[in-house]
Amino acid sequence: MPKDVITTRAKDYNQWYLDIVREADLAEVAEVVRGCIVFKATGYAVWEMMQRELDDRIKETGHQNVYFPLLIPKSFIMKEAEHVEGFAPEVAEVTRAGGEELAEPYVIRPTSETIIGYFYSKWIRSYRDLPLLYNQWCNVMRWEMRTRPFLRTSEFLWSEGHTAHATEADAEAETLNILYNVYADFAEQVMAMPVIRGLKTENEKFPGALRSYCIEAMMQDGRALQAGTSHNLGQNFAKAFDITFTDQANTVQHVWTTSWGVSTRLIGALIMTHSDDEGLVLPPRLAPTQVVVVPIYKNDAEREKVLATVATITAGWKGTLRFKVDNRDNLSPGFKYNEWEMKGVPVRIEVGPKDVEKGSVAIARRDVPGREGKSFVPQEGLTARILALLEEIQQGLFARALRFREEHTADVTTYDELKVQIERGFARAYWAGSPDDEKRIQDETRATIRCIPLDQPGTAGTCVYTGKETTQQVIFARAY
Amino acid sequence: MPKDVITTRAKDYNQWYLDIVREADLAEVAEVVRGCIVFKATGYAVWEMMQRELDDRIKETGHQNVYFPLLIPKSFIMKEAEHVEGFAPEVAEVTRAGGEELAEPYVIRPTSETIIGYFYSKWIRSYRDLPLLYNQWCNVMRWEMRTRPFLRTSEFLWSEGHTAHATEADAEAETLNILYNVYADFAEQVMAMPVIRGLKTENEKFPGALRSYCIEAMMQDGRALQAGTSHNLGQNFAKAFDITFTDQANTVQHVWTTSWGVSTRLIGALIMTHSDDEGLVLPPRLAPTQVVVVPIYKNDAEREKVLATVATITAGWKGTLRFKVDNRDNLSPGFKYNEWEMKGVPVRIEVGPKDVEKGSVAIARRDVPGREGKSFVPQEGLTARILALLEEIQQGLFARALRFREEHTADVTTYDELKVQIERGFARAYWAGSPDDEKRIQDETRATIRCIPLDQPGTAGTCVYTGKETTQQVIFARAY
Repeated sequence: MPKDVITTRAKDYNQWYLDIVREADLAEVAEVVRGCIVFKATGYAVWEMMQRELDDRIKETGHQNVYFPLLIPKSFIMKEAEHVEGFAPEVAEVTRAGGEELAEPYVIRPTSETIIGYFYSKWIRSYRDLPLLYNQWCNVMRWEMRTRPFLRTSEFLWSEGHTAHATEADAEAETLNILYNVYADFAEQVMAMPVIRGLKTENEKFPGALRSYCIEAMMQDGRALQAGTSHNLGQNFAKAFDITFTDQANTVQHVWTTSWGVSTRLIGALIMTHSDDEGLVLPPRLAPTQVVVVPIYKNDAEREKVLATVATITAGWKGTLRFKVDNRDNLSPGFKYNEWEMKGVPVRIEVGPKDVEKGSVAIARRDVPGREGKSFVPQEGLTARILALLEEIQQGLFARALRFREEHTADVTTYDELKVQIERGFARAYWAGSPDDEKRIQDETRATIRCIPLDQPGTAGTCVYTGKETTQQVIFARAY
Repeated sequence: MPKDVITTRAKDYNQWYLDIVREADLAEVAEVVRGCIVFKATGYAVWEMMQRELDDRIKETGHQNVYFPLLIPKSFIMKEAEHVEGFAPEVAEVTRAGGEELAEPYVIRPTSETIIGYFYSKWIRSYRDLPLLYNQWCNVMRWEMRTRPFLRTSEFLWSEGHTAHATEADAEAETLNILYNVYADFAEQVMAMPVIRGLKTENEKFPGALRSYCIEAMMQDGRALQAGTSHNLGQNFAKAFDITFTDQANTVQHVWTTSWGVSTRLIGALIMTHSDDEGLVLPPRLAPTQVVVVPIYKNDAEREKVLATVATITAGWKGTLRFKVDNRDNLSPGFKYNEWEMKGVPVRIEVGPKDVEKGSVAIARRDVPGREGKSFVPQEGLTARILALLEEIQQGLFARALRFREEHTADVTTYDELKVQIERGFARAYWAGSPDDEKRIQDETRATIRCIPLDQPGTAGTCVYTGKETTQQVIFARAY
């Protein structure tokens, strides 16, 4: 596999991304199904790792998984005013089935608030039925015009949570619990991707939400990527679908609902946070293969000795490390190194005849390419050394991404400064503008307010656009 | 929860099934989406347990997971002659998307041989690319006329494997490997459901297959349920989608493909294999909750003491047992017992004030209802005792189901005997009839040849219908 199959980031960032998606066996554009991709083996394996970690957190916070139908009666989508406007233009419709035209078309779910709202209205009667804390893993479809593998595709895979509560405070607590303890924790601890926890502006919130919270990450080109959203839906869907309960004082009230989601776009975020010009870089906690062992030999005698040593080294690894021994014949070690580098395996172990004699191995870390990342270590104590190294890599990737974000974030006090800063990263600014002001800035600069960080300085300043005094800071950036 | 919410099997078997589906929180018919169900919390949790066990076996046998698009160009479905006939009448079609009529409609996948065949033809060039061993977990849709929760629904969830091989022998070995080492092993070891490994007749095989193998189980009403299928597709799809490779002699050949699948209908099979008139019965290896602990107390002082003991007992259980402590207030122990019995939890532990004093607990097994299944045991050594009991229950359920099948299977030598036997179970018969004979029997008796068991007696006998001498035995039964 020649190295130059990957365009460098410096030369063409977008092409670099597409090259990695293709060469690391992550996905392939399914040109026969508009806007869709095939999730290939490495890509899907990363998604499975993500699912496992997210699912653990979703269950730890008291939620259960369920599964609602793929198809939603078209009329359901029309019941919540903002929701219609947001989703109706991009749905795919089933109009014929079993050889007959349908009286009412179905839409393929673009998201499931409506169909779930319908069932919640049947299931919820009393305050004793609350809260309802459900999540589902599924595919959804939004007929997107411009698509890019993982980041924006017509069909994507996701987790969508839908909960119902007795009070606004309970719904708000749920929304923030998911944001902090599921999404931000997963992004930072598992993806090694630092995120800003924030509130969306009115312009950017989910169609039908009272308030949308998000986690925003910075990609290596300085652009923002919304990595997860958690919505307090207020009573909007409860009113549209008549979801009511009898409270302890025997009064009938509408419930308060939330919804939240993360999707396979996280794979795109992962690529653009850590990968380099050699290929994919995976944080150890998400790597389907954490360690690859490459035996080196020139003849059968060497092969036998080396493979025996490899067997000894790896004997205790099952259940401790996710590893592969690459003993394919007819492929050179160099070819194998390149392939596993391309696929982002965090640690490579090389074992040759000299290592057999000396009781050593070579160990190479993916996050530090070339000679600098390679060292020779004794076979004794190797497992513990690898485990420690994986942890070091995990922390190192996070630290590097955080440093990158900090270096590409700047406070701006004037609109001109803002225009300059969004070319290189995040512009942090005081903001007291209107939704129309925000739209004007977007039209002029292609940057949007990514979020109002929940962590605010608490000091006052001057709005970057209106000159008004305010204590509210926001993050401007161009976004995926 | 009054016991009489479940109709007895003796009174109305079909209603009994529907009552369990509803009362055990397994599923709800989604009357607003034709033929679809909502997978509720217990039902989906059982599916997750099944997925985990199946996925481990699928990966152990060398397969990787991938994900192909939900939508398939309608023309693809038309490319393989038998496949068209089998699936075209029952597809759901997307004809409009993003507000516009589509030039070519898409169908929602009823199964993915065609779209996967298209990509395999792009991916496979040389014998070095073979075998391709992929599986996907996804939803599929078939517009069914008569539906029943889990057993037959328009949308269902499944795993579908799709592999490509260089030779017919390789494809056949794959087909049988899945049948024996994934499906039959899972059914018997995990579901505790004995199955017959067999070959389908021409009439019953998958549309487009060369040979279809299956595992068939007997439900408690004596009817058969096809629990999984594994198809040797020969070169049929390879020819329809032009999937070729260059072999070692540099000749271009069509590949040999297989496909295999198991679906959420397994949940229906599970219910109808083990459950009783009290509700769901789950084998321990698939029970999302294996043990429920019910504390018993009458006042705060007792409550405190009992819960302290419960905490001590369960202290080491995390990671060893899947358990729940049901400390809900305002619900009587009896109510809780009924609820957990209904939901099929294999073992219940009761702890009251007297148990605290005596260092004992009461232990009740779900597979043996009433007093007979209840005993009083010391707290000391409880964890080991429960683990042993779970294993005993697992084996016991399998043995009971096997005994039931044996008692409801009989050899028949005449058509009249066959007609009688299919009223009570499986009729095993020598068979040398034609596909037309088989259809005639189906029209007259509603029984079909469920399979030609792979385990054959090796002796000759007289065909039950034609009177011809043959060594082939088959199983006749009515089927779900």
